[in-house]
Amino acid sequence: MTAPSSPLVIAVDCSTTAAKAIIVDSGGRVVGTGSQALATHSPAPHWFEQDAHQWWTATSDAIMAALKAIPDPGAVAAVCVTHQRESFVCLDEHGTPIRPAILWMDGRAAEEARSYGTERVELLSGKPADITPGLYKLLWLRDHEPDTMARCHRVADVHSHLVHTMTGRWVSSTASVDPLAVIDQATGDYSDELLELAGLRRDQLPDLVPSGSSLGPLRADIADAWGLRRDVVVIAGTGDGQAGGIGLAVTDPGAAYLVLGTAVVIGSETMSYVPARAYRSMVSAMPGQSTVETFSSSGTYLSTWFRQQFGDPGLAGAPDPELEREAAALPVGSERLVTLPYWNGAQTPHWDGRASGVTLGWQGCHTRAHFYRSLLEGIALELRLQLDGLEAARGERVEVLRATGGGARSPLWTQILADVFDRPIQVCAAAEVSALGAAAIALTALGVYDTLPAAAAAVSTTDAVVAPRPDAAAAYRQLRPVYERVYSQTRDLLHTLHELQRGEPQ
Amino acid sequence: MTAPSSPLVIAVDCSTTAAKAIIVDSGGRVVGTGSQALATHSPAPHWFEQDAHQWWTATSDAIMAALKAIPDPGAVAAVCVTHQRESFVCLDEHGTPIRPAILWMDGRAAEEARSYGTERVELLSGKPADITPGLYKLLWLRDHEPDTMARCHRVADVHSHLVHTMTGRWVSSTASVDPLAVIDQATGDYSDELLELAGLRRDQLPDLVPSGSSLGPLRADIADAWGLRRDVVVIAGTGDGQAGGIGLAVTDPGAAYLVLGTAVVIGSETMSYVPARAYRSMVSAMPGQSTVETFSSSGTYLSTWFRQQFGDPGLAGAPDPELEREAAALPVGSERLVTLPYWNGAQTPHWDGRASGVTLGWQGCHTRAHFYRSLLEGIALELRLQLDGLEAARGERVEVLRATGGGARSPLWTQILADVFDRPIQVCAAAEVSALGAAAIALTALGVYDTLPAAAAAVSTTDAVVAPRPDAAAAYRQLRPVYERVYSQTRDLLHTLHELQRGEPQ
Repeated sequence: MTAPSSPLVIAVDCSTTAAKAIIVDSGGRVVGTGSQALATHSPAPHWFEQDAHQWWTATSDAIMAALKAIPDPGAVAAVCVTHQRESFVCLDEHGTPIRPAILWMDGRAAEEARSYGTERVELLSGKPADITPGLYKLLWLRDHEPDTMARCHRVADVHSHLVHTMTGRWVSSTASVDPLAVIDQATGDYSDELLELAGLRRDQLPDLVPSGSSLGPLRADIADAWGLRRDVVVIAGTGDGQAGGIGLAVTDPGAAYLVLGTAVVIGSETMSYVPARAYRSMVSAMPGQSTVETFSSSGTYLSTWFRQQFGDPGLAGAPDPELEREAAALPVGSERLVTLPYWNGAQTPHWDGRASGVTLGWQGCHTRAHFYRSLLEGIALELRLQLDGLEAARGERVEVLRATGGGARSPLWTQILADVFDRPIQVCAAAEVSALGAAAIALTALGVYDTLPAAAAAVSTTDAVVAPRPDAAAAYRQLRPVYERVYSQTRDLLHTLHELQRGEPQ
Repeated sequence: MTAPSSPLVIAVDCSTTAAKAIIVDSGGRVVGTGSQALATHSPAPHWFEQDAHQWWTATSDAIMAALKAIPDPGAVAAVCVTHQRESFVCLDEHGTPIRPAILWMDGRAAEEARSYGTERVELLSGKPADITPGLYKLLWLRDHEPDTMARCHRVADVHSHLVHTMTGRWVSSTASVDPLAVIDQATGDYSDELLELAGLRRDQLPDLVPSGSSLGPLRADIADAWGLRRDVVVIAGTGDGQAGGIGLAVTDPGAAYLVLGTAVVIGSETMSYVPARAYRSMVSAMPGQSTVETFSSSGTYLSTWFRQQFGDPGLAGAPDPELEREAAALPVGSERLVTLPYWNGAQTPHWDGRASGVTLGWQGCHTRAHFYRSLLEGIALELRLQLDGLEAARGERVEVLRATGGGARSPLWTQILADVFDRPIQVCAAAEVSALGAAAIALTALGVYDTLPAAAAAVSTTDAVVAPRPDAAAAYRQLRPVYERVYSQTRDLLHTLHELQRGEPQ
């Protein structure tokens, strides 16, 4: 490396909604930020696409905006990208997109996930069959758009596409390509079996290197355009989930990250690949390790839904301090009102797209605040179920939970989570934990920190610690088996309801 | 009878909340009304009591108020009383109440209903074991207030008490005494077995005569105080449910009344006593017939609860035309959101005090209006279940449903009911159908009409007819088996939840 003695790094999170750039100093402090929105198109229900060229223009714009905040761009020594996962674009031999990129949350491949998502495929890829992994969408393209695949020279995830643009090299981090679900978790290399299933050749996919590897210098024209030194290197990043874990200093199995966003995710590490349906496994940015994640689509999605439907219309779904206060004053268990939060189906561990939400135990004493608290408790009980499954499958207990995302700003919700988990919740208020994780990877690659965990500790912050209350934890312990029976006892009914023809309009 | 050729009758409904008097002419038209509120006391949770003396003072006040509207009180030929059922008072040898009257909805005897409500008792009395029948409260008094029963000279239901006050005679209609549950439905006389269980002698209860019998003239001092002729006769009435049926012209098995009040009731007739747990059987005002009723505590109670919790705060729970409009615009089945309306436990046919409400099928597309519609649909589906049970048990189909009560004023709700029942709903907007029924009994007793059904036809009105829509009826037909499975599949869970200790307060 030829970096300055106290270098700065640029970290970009090219997420679903925006490219967000931060500039971080060697102490782990953010000294500049920039952001550029990304447009998503939905050409059919449950289909979600983006113009892949925008991944690059938005990234470049965000970086240039962030650079305005620092006096000396010459201090920048490296660029590292984290990104939305599973999303990919098909490129022709000139590197031009053949069709819009298909995003992670695009639901078109539900049938392919059912048909091709065998136990064998799940074992190799480490991922429960679901609409998200790229594999099933590649199979959808093969069956529905054979012309696209016939002309497809390269399949690029977000990271590979940006690295190729920035360096001219067709190389990526294993962790970034992994969400396409064509990498064998046991070997860390492409699986010939999965490639064959997808109908892909190895040369259609980038060469693989570990996260933190140098991918060579920025193209000179780009370095010049951004006003950077020509020896600025591009460092191999990772997906936004794994990067967020690093940004929260979750680098070993004893800790877990809890993303309380629209969807909720629990993520932790295993020291090697431990196959299980209790989570999805991904190549970790920590060498040899596996990042494991549970997933539920019912996060702030649900609390926002409640406030939009039943809240003060003047607040238009925004957090309502009065509602939070009323709900916080209620006893544990919302006076025997239990909610199964499957408004968008069930994910980990049931993976049941035909499931829907259930509220059980209604009595006349229940108020609007009871329903709201019961939703938050349902999400927490579901997360506890997921954490229990994760711990049982890998055989190691999580001691520290570190929460981030919009939901982490609700003292009511974090208290419920601490009580349900019966473990302290460390709250991290930093907005861009994924970009911070990418910055930690870059700082480690530059040698500023000896290890990635040391860099992660430097960039992460803890803004509050919420302790479990023994009485509340005991009450939730009593409620958990009841909660867990709700799904098993209503599953058949929910499936019947799902199959029911829609009623006639009035 | 010595009545005028075109007599007037006074009919009083001495209900739970007020004594309401109407004066009705020989054509069945109401020519005067008066009302006087009654106070209810709740000395303990679920206990409800009244001062029995108020039954009389409120009745007298209401009658005097109604008489002010007519030019010639001398035209009044008869007085007939209908009344809240099951409520009773214990009187000493001077006719003075020993303790406050215990009302029908008083819940103190839940344990007695479980202990003493055997199949044999249900068969004799014709009434499912429940808190309402007087028998279980008499057993409660025997066990908890032995002094009361030792001093008790007479047990008087509302009708017996008012008749005794008005005539000095200790006589009542069988139909009015019947809710005490000491009358053998098969014979129409007191059951020695039930009297022995209750620890009562026959002479503690009034002599029994059929509804419509003359009980003799008003006491002279009362006739004078009211400004009536001294030959005005008191006619034996019936309970408010049976009287309401008559006021709605439901006098044979082909019709049913649908009371859409705080609680909801379906009532019809059988030509003789047909024992079944699908309904409660009561001595009818039509000689030899039995009035059968189903009961659910989830009526406007539930729609008011919804509007109070989730409605426009400015409306304070009152009907909301905007909410009704939004709910009416939704498809049948509320887009696969199903509600079990057991907010106050389940009554007919499950009689399950440990049940509670369930909402099943929540999806992100559901709005506040979906939840509201789903509640109304749940109540309607429960009523359909009750009607099916009633018809199956007695072997005769109901062709005409006549709806009354606050809920009958909602075009949304009556349309849902017509569609769920797949039968037209005749809506009766008259406020005092029970008092109209008592007036019909009096007019028949005076000979103005040859039969009670003819008098009932004269006093009853139909304000609207809501026809079922074939497509909607077909959609509900598809939904009904799903609805009916919700209880059977969640019952164990609801019981577990009921037993759960209350959570610790925050």
